[in-house]
Amino acid sequence: MKNFILPIEKLVAAFSRLPSVGRKSAIRFAYHIINSSEKSVQEFADALLEAKKTVRYCNVCGNFTDTEICETCATKDRTLVCVVAEPRDVLALEQVDFSGTFHVLHGLLNPMKNITPNDLRIKELINRIAEDNVKEVVIATSPTVEGEATAFYLGNLLKTLEVKVTKLAQGISVGTDIEYIDEHTLSKAIEDRKEF
Amino acid sequence: MKNFILPIEKLVAAFSRLPSVGRKSAIRFAYHIINSSEKSVQEFADALLEAKKTVRYCNVCGNFTDTEICETCATKDRTLVCVVAEPRDVLALEQVDFSGTFHVLHGLLNPMKNITPNDLRIKELINRIAEDNVKEVVIATSPTVEGEATAFYLGNLLKTLEVKVTKLAQGISVGTDIEYIDEHTLSKAIEDRKEF
Repeated sequence: MKNFILPIEKLVAAFSRLPSVGRKSAIRFAYHIINSSEKSVQEFADALLEAKKTVRYCNVCGNFTDTEICETCATKDRTLVCVVAEPRDVLALEQVDFSGTFHVLHGLLNPMKNITPNDLRIKELINRIAEDNVKEVVIATSPTVEGEATAFYLGNLLKTLEVKVTKLAQGISVGTDIEYIDEHTLSKAIEDRKEF
Repeated sequence: MKNFILPIEKLVAAFSRLPSVGRKSAIRFAYHIINSSEKSVQEFADALLEAKKTVRYCNVCGNFTDTEICETCATKDRTLVCVVAEPRDVLALEQVDFSGTFHVLHGLLNPMKNITPNDLRIKELINRIAEDNVKEVVIATSPTVEGEATAFYLGNLLKTLEVKVTKLAQGISVGTDIEYIDEHTLSKAIEDRKEF
């Protein structure tokens, strides 16, 4: 494949480093930038640098914040902690009515990718449980292989501490059609059925 | 949807303005940036600003360049001109053996989007034909509705000038299976069949 002139190639290369962006998309993005106004390109560059400069991890939960302790940790119940894999999971869970705080692991156990408990923020979770006198830990990892493995590991580990450990309920999703639900979800939903 | 802290929201907004990037992808890109090294974020910002600052249109063909006249126009045969819609089409065509130069229209006729001949670089093409004593114009717009309409318009317009006008051959693609080719392409391929 022939190359563009250097400044375009550099920009294409920068865009290609974004997750799931191939060369074709990167070229479309680069064209878009070249055809944008100088002002909006400057804003884009500023947004990149500012986000990188000001965004840090909350000292308590590990979520993104621009202060020492994030707003959620500063205002919500720190004795109730919901454990998630990534900051984006916090955003999803903050939309529901939950009085507690979060704890971001920044990953999930994955022996294939060599991600062990030491690579996750588990030690920080143990410390928090003691320091904040945590009463309940809700494990909210996704029901994938890695998510379940991590939940299982954490469940066993936390059992040794004086804390109640729960996990998100599994079952049929609101608004789905029974006929389209996979058998694993259905069997889980039957197993965990609740009285009317 | 709850919002992130301001520097992340600004970055998500910047990524969302890229073509076909929705909020979910923009969030993934923003996370990637925050987790990247300071150096690579600085490089990204520099690439944006440098591309915007240095890239301009070639005075002759309208393709992207960082000099007054692009390398192709400076070195190839300017009496043979291949007309394309966008700079990315030039990149595709530069991979084949073609001794001529290009002319980028920067768009295609589209009455629905109110794109008329005045919005395309057609006047520049007419001037080039006279100035460079062009002998042949190859119309290489994509075989879409807009591409064909633009080709038809250009074909009629250029007929009035002393120049040979051709268009790319249509037919079955190399490596495709006859059974999967659409009927329009097949009927075109039969109509334009060539002797062995």
